[in-house]
Amino acid sequence: MIGTEDGMKEQEYERRLTERKEQIEAFLQSYLPQTAYPQKTLLEAMRYSVENGGKRLRPILMLESYLLFDGAEDKLPTLVAPFCAAIEMIHSYSLVHDDLPAMDNDQYRRGKLTTHAAFGEAMGILAGDGLLNFAFETALLAAGEPEDDARVLRALGVLARKAGAFGMIGGQTVDVELTGKALTAEQLEFIYRLKTGALLEASLMVGAILAGADSAQVEAVEQIAADVGMAFQIRDDILDEVGNEELLGKPVHSDEKNQKTTYAVLFGLEAARQEVRRLSERAKETLRGLGGESAFLEWLFDWLVSREY
Amino acid sequence: MIGTEDGMKEQEYERRLTERKEQIEAFLQSYLPQTAYPQKTLLEAMRYSVENGGKRLRPILMLESYLLFDGAEDKLPTLVAPFCAAIEMIHSYSLVHDDLPAMDNDQYRRGKLTTHAAFGEAMGILAGDGLLNFAFETALLAAGEPEDDARVLRALGVLARKAGAFGMIGGQTVDVELTGKALTAEQLEFIYRLKTGALLEASLMVGAILAGADSAQVEAVEQIAADVGMAFQIRDDILDEVGNEELLGKPVHSDEKNQKTTYAVLFGLEAARQEVRRLSERAKETLRGLGGESAFLEWLFDWLVSREY
Repeated sequence: MIGTEDGMKEQEYERRLTERKEQIEAFLQSYLPQTAYPQKTLLEAMRYSVENGGKRLRPILMLESYLLFDGAEDKLPTLVAPFCAAIEMIHSYSLVHDDLPAMDNDQYRRGKLTTHAAFGEAMGILAGDGLLNFAFETALLAAGEPEDDARVLRALGVLARKAGAFGMIGGQTVDVELTGKALTAEQLEFIYRLKTGALLEASLMVGAILAGADSAQVEAVEQIAADVGMAFQIRDDILDEVGNEELLGKPVHSDEKNQKTTYAVLFGLEAARQEVRRLSERAKETLRGLGGESAFLEWLFDWLVSREY
Repeated sequence: MIGTEDGMKEQEYERRLTERKEQIEAFLQSYLPQTAYPQKTLLEAMRYSVENGGKRLRPILMLESYLLFDGAEDKLPTLVAPFCAAIEMIHSYSLVHDDLPAMDNDQYRRGKLTTHAAFGEAMGILAGDGLLNFAFETALLAAGEPEDDARVLRALGVLARKAGAFGMIGGQTVDVELTGKALTAEQLEFIYRLKTGALLEASLMVGAILAGADSAQVEAVEQIAADVGMAFQIRDDILDEVGNEELLGKPVHSDEKNQKTTYAVLFGLEAARQEVRRLSERAKETLRGLGGESAFLEWLFDWLVSREY
């Protein structure tokens, strides 16, 4: 049974999470392109891809990381908001391209038609390209104040690297290549670390860099995010086996259907649950070691790895 | 008949063009990723897409624009080379995605298999994504010296904008949407200006910005590139009607086959030739007005709009 104090904290954190999500939605709305141009269809497909009811996890983590390192609150709208919007655009484009017929060939995501299913395949490709590119256009709007130039450039470098061939796209590629094959634990870890982990790492790292964190601190949050990302992905595997289709908004057992090796398949459900616990505990410990106001982030990590959807 | 002096200039400029192309190839080789990683196939497909024997026109224009505005030669390898490689990567990715089955569905380009034909459709999508992303990763390597940060950020902003939904991708989208329909001159101009023009504009603009040109100068080269881009594209239409398949390395009359309205179709070959002349003369006049060492660029513009391939 949850004590009254714990119950109040729980409520407070849930409220904070809701507020953060609303804040991110507002950032996104302020940066997403208007559509009254000849390339209207493209711009509508780009907006459609982002306005899909996601958890906005990555920009929320970025924002919280910025605050953890005492980033100036008055610079949130000009310095951090563009990067928050950018990382969500990158996440969105990756889903749009993952869903394409030549990739996972998915018609629905979160109960809505996928972008290519709604706009056609050519527009799915172009909307994904447009969003990836627009992410950089948006992040570059952060280049307002001369004294922040170096931080902005460093943050852009991390964002680009983690999104690319040595980050998310690299993981996605190996995932595509090895689908239908029996994976080793090492291959699976490579895929998870890059495909899911890399953007989460970028989220915490960019927030820290924009706040002025030093290299050791940026490395620490990279490791934290790697652990959380791995735990998050293994949780996904567990949900694919035992999750509730209605809560998830997507069919369960899709990994089986797509003949994907998962952590749960490889090591069994119980070991998967243990690994999720081990990784998230380690992440929280490293986080506490950084000495900032970390209670909400710790709660968020717990929520992420125990979520039902 | 060409006089001796003109003949010597011609030879000198041809040599300079060859040297520039070799310089750009060396830049590209120094930035393209090594492939000894688990995501080897992706990295090989990315390299394959760039190592395709292109004219390297965009980075050559960038380099020449940098020199036109007296950019420091010693900063060429650190400040300008990353952007030169980046713009060629963006051009390459756009071709890879254009060639996909859901787009133009081309199996050959310059006599070689297209990326998706050689590596499969999923890898074609991912290699394109990887290259677009890697272009930004590469350009961000230019952020070496603190005093150049502002210029680098401004150049990145232009590069991103011109490559995106309000630049190249926007033009490509309208082109795809209107294929098979009869276009108005206005629609055709919109497509040409964005699809072909935008990256050429970025080339001259980025070179000028990195050299420290002022806003009026950057605007002037934007206009020059717009004119050259339009002339270049109309020349493409002319070549598609009267060109030599062997020199071009691609089938002629492909526009007819794809039911594309072209400038030559809309206004006739003679008017098309006149428009090419008018635009390139205007571009050269504006260029001379900038007062730098413009003779080679003028020759290059003439070469571009009279080329047979």
